[in-house]
Parts: sequence; C-alpha cells; structure tokens
Amino acid sequence: MMSPEDQKRLAGWQNAAAPLGAILLGQSTQSWEEGRAQYMSALDRLFPAPEGVSFETVEMDGVSAMLVTPDDVIDGKVLFYIHGGGYVHGGTLAYRGLAGRYAKALKARVYVPDYRQAPEHPYPTPLDDTYRALKSLYDAGVAPTKLTISGDSAGGAMVVTMMRKVRDAGLPLPAAGVAISPWADLTHSSKSQYERDGIDPVCSREFLMLLAKEFLGNTLPSDPDASPVFADVRGLPPTLIQIGENEVMLSDAMRLATHLGENRVRTSLEIWPGMFHVWHLFGGMPEADDALRNAVFFLEDAMTKAQA
Amino acid sequence: MMSPEDQKRLAGWQNAAAPLGAILLGQSTQSWEEGRAQYMSALDRLFPAPEGVSFETVEMDGVSAMLVTPDDVIDGKVLFYIHGGGYVHGGTLAYRGLAGRYAKALKARVYVPDYRQAPEHPYPTPLDDTYRALKSLYDAGVAPTKLTISGDSAGGAMVVTMMRKVRDAGLPLPAAGVAISPWADLTHSSKSQYERDGIDPVCSREFLMLLAKEFLGNTLPSDPDASPVFADVRGLPPTLIQIGENEVMLSDAMRLATHLGENRVRTSLEIWPGMFHVWHLFGGMPEADDALRNAVFFLEDAMTKAQA
Repeated sequence: MMSPEDQKRLAGWQNAAAPLGAILLGQSTQSWEEGRAQYMSALDRLFPAPEGVSFETVEMDGVSAMLVTPDDVIDGKVLFYIHGGGYVHGGTLAYRGLAGRYAKALKARVYVPDYRQAPEHPYPTPLDDTYRALKSLYDAGVAPTKLTISGDSAGGAMVVTMMRKVRDAGLPLPAAGVAISPWADLTHSSKSQYERDGIDPVCSREFLMLLAKEFLGNTLPSDPDASPVFADVRGLPPTLIQIGENEVMLSDAMRLATHLGENRVRTSLEIWPGMFHVWHLFGGMPEADDALRNAVFFLEDAMTKAQA
Repeated sequence: MMSPEDQKRLAGWQNAAAPLGAILLGQSTQSWEEGRAQYMSALDRLFPAPEGVSFETVEMDGVSAMLVTPDDVIDGKVLFYIHGGGYVHGGTLAYRGLAGRYAKALKARVYVPDYRQAPEHPYPTPLDDTYRALKSLYDAGVAPTKLTISGDSAGGAMVVTMMRKVRDAGLPLPAAGVAISPWADLTHSSKSQYERDGIDPVCSREFLMLLAKEFLGNTLPSDPDASPVFADVRGLPPTLIQIGENEVMLSDAMRLATHLGENRVRTSLEIWPGMFHVWHLFGGMPEADDALRNAVFFLEDAMTKAQA
C-alpha cells in the first residue's frame, strides 16, 4: 500500500511529468518540427546534466552522436544508449541528464546516436542509422565484453532489435542490455493499452497510434524489427526490462520479458508501482535513482561474467 | 546462446538433480513416509550445511522449527524461510545447505518452520502451522522492517499467502519477500505445464497433480490460499520471483509476477535459462550462487527502505 506521503510525493512527480505528456498530446495541432523542438527543450530544462561529465558531438560512421565521458572513466567500457521519443520525438540534447548519470554510475563512455526520425525519415531509417552507429563501435575495436546497450521507449525496443542485428551479422554480442519502458508492441493490443489509458500521465494509446503510423508508413505494426515481441530473440545476451506500473505499455513489457525468457534469454523484469513512462529521467527521485542503480548492477554483473 | 561448455556443465548439474526427480516420480509406488524420508536424506547428502553457521531446534508457538544462526549475525535481522516439497515432501533437515547460505549472506537469523504436511495433514494445516510460526516472530518483538520472507516451490507460493495473512490480520508487513520457483497455480493450466513437461528434470505435471490432490482434498485448486495467482494481493511488500526457464512452473511464475505488478506490488521477476526447479539448492553452482546473491540484494534494499 502506498502511504499518503508517498502518494503525495508521487503526485508531485507526475505533475512534473505532465507537461511532457501535454506537449506530446498537443502534437497533432503543431508541425512535427515545432513539437520536437518544444519537447526537447522541455526535457533539457527539466533534466539538467549532472556534475562530473563532459559532452561532445562525434560522428559514428556518418551518424551524429553525443558522447558522454565521466571524469572517472574506466577505459574501454562503453554504453550505447538509444533515446526514446516514438521514433519521432526526442534527441540527444534531451538526454544529457539521464545519459550523464548513467555514465557516472557505470564509469563508462556513453554514446547516444542522433538517429534520423519519422515522419521525415520513417521505418527503417531510425533502425538503420542506429545500427550503423553501433556497428562503428565494433569497427573501432570496442571489446564486446565491455559493451552494453540500453535505451528507453522506442529506444528500449531498439535495444532488442540492435542485439538481433548484431547476432544476425555474426558479430560477437554485447555483454547485456537494459530496456527502459520499452515500446515493444506497435499493434497496441495488450490489456494495459486499454486499462492504463488515461492513467498514464505521459503516453496515451491514441498518441502512440499516431506515432506508430508516422513511423511505420506501409510497414505492418507486427513487423518484428518494429515490435520485438514478434521477433526471433534466440541467443540474445542477458536483458533487464524495467517498466512503470501506470504505463499503457505495461503488459507489452511483460510480454517482451515472457517472450525472451521462453526463448532461453536470461531475462529480468522489474515492475515499479506508481511509476510512469521513463521515470528514470527524473534524477533525484528515489525510484529513478534506484532503477538506474539496478540497471547498472545488472550490466556490471553481465560484463563480469562475459569477461570470465 | 549457451556455449557447448555451459551446456555440458548444465547437463552435469541436471544429472545431479535427477535423483531428486526420480525419488519424487517414484513416489506413487512407495508409502509417503518412506518417500519423504528418502527425499529428505538425499537432499541432506547433496546439499551439506556451510561452515560458519549453527543450527538448533526451536519451538514457534507449538510449531517445531530449525533456527540457523550465522557466526556473523546482525542482531534483530530475521529471515523466515518456508521450505518446499509440494506440501507433502521435504523438511528442515533437507534445507541446512540453502538456509545456511542464506543466513550467512544476509547476516540474519533464519527460521525454517517444520509445518505438518499432507496427506496426513492436508489443506489448510500446512498454511496454518506456517502462519502460526510466523506470527510468533511478531509476538516475540521482531521488527517488521528487519523481517523478510522467502521460500521455494510450495514455500514460494506460501511467501505470498503468508504476507496476505499478515496484512489481513492488520499486522505491519515484513519488508520484502523472495519466492523461488513458486508453485503458484495448482490448476496446472498454463503453457509451460505442457511445453516443459518432460524437459523439467525435477517436476512433472503428473506428479504435481498427485501432490495437489493429496494437499487439497476437497478444496478447489483455484483456492486463493493455495494458488496465489487467484488471490487478492493488494498492498503486499516488494516481491522478487526467481524461476528456471526449464520448469513446468515457468508460466505460472510469470503469471504471478504479472498479477502482483498489475495490483501495484513492487515486483521483480528473474528468468534463468537452463535452470531447473529450485536450483538454488546447489550451492557452488554459479547460477545458484548468483540467484541467491540477487535475492539477498533485493531483501537488503527493501529493508533499507522500510527502515528509512
């Protein structure tokens, strides 16, 4: 049972998250460009970069990316972070806070590719750009045992899709992945898509349908590269999924965990009560800090084993 | 993808586990008493107590129990451990290894109640005995913020049932629970009950049906006290579920996690590829040690928060 104090505290965070939802929900009345810029600057304002990290813009085989380097860095350790935003919204600027805190906690360099987005660049461009950026790390000689992948929302689904692409290319797999609030099923057919609609303070089913349409074009929503719950996931490295209990994507994340587990992937699932879409962005909120700590623990553990 | 080395290593552990399955599967040709004694002495031989812990027999409001005290103990910290065995098999002697390692890792006193079992003492006696033992810890003044509950198989299901009984009695809740390979649905109707039957080296669906019949008598398999997937779980403390990917109970554990999460319980689920029923018993096997470490991490974290 959440205490009255906790409920009040949660309501505060939800209020802070609400403008994000409002910007997204207001999308249909704006140009994509305008909405994207508004959303990005709201995120940048809300989630400032932490102390003790530096940022630079780098190129990864033609894909622009943000490189985050913590002052206290272990050489060779790399996290590839894929930002969310429905393949339409968001960008590296909006993730200085989360990527910065991830970099510090992991003592790793974090690369956040600035993949091109829909509707200007629909499926499969966001996936192709992201894979090209990831592949460039292999070409640069990053050791796969010290390489991990994480991402949120659309980027959380891409965590699984990128691992599959690495596997299918015959490259050695990264040590592990963490999918935060993954947008794992673009058919939007699961229970929570109905039961949490209107409760989730950030995403609505209607808006997700709109984003999916812009992203997919003529591609089916059940395409396995777009919806990893339908993909061949055999042989993928250990994967942690973290999902908020108030999310319209709740059941989809559970289904992704079940799908991975039934296909013999080492899978962990964390369901966080009261939490909303990608709550990890709110650095300083205890649940955000704890979820990030668990993610780092999971990645460290898998890297230790991959190097053994 | 499991490496050939890992597959070979796993086969070794599975062979070690097979006698347990064989004893259980041979049950129908023996008296329950004979089978129980055989199973218990096999487990005691296979899973010896670690160094650095001492054992004594105590009474918990009339219920006999094994108390495990590690040399390095933090005063007031208590784990209530509920052993498995289908409400028919097993006993404290068989759990000196697992309870001993748990006690050392948590630096806590571990109480393992020797609840009466079916068929001599069917539903609800095993549950009532176990609750009486747990309640005696409250009467003895154990602080709920330093009290956690764990258990395996039937005992894993009882972790949830005992928390519900504590809640319904209006007592303060323990800090957290860990359910290992929980036997969470006695209707045996889920996918893995068919797909993993014959693959699981320890449990078969047929034998589970037999155990359930002996335990339940005229009680329905869907009784919420016997099958927590059907229970009102609102307000329960953080719960971690660990399940092996080869288990006939795999889908039931996933369903329990889903049920908890959808009812706003802080829930984590770990699916371990290649692992079999209650692999934690095999101290020294890396997967067993890692799973126990994760369980301890989860309990410690919840206790820290409960005390804050």
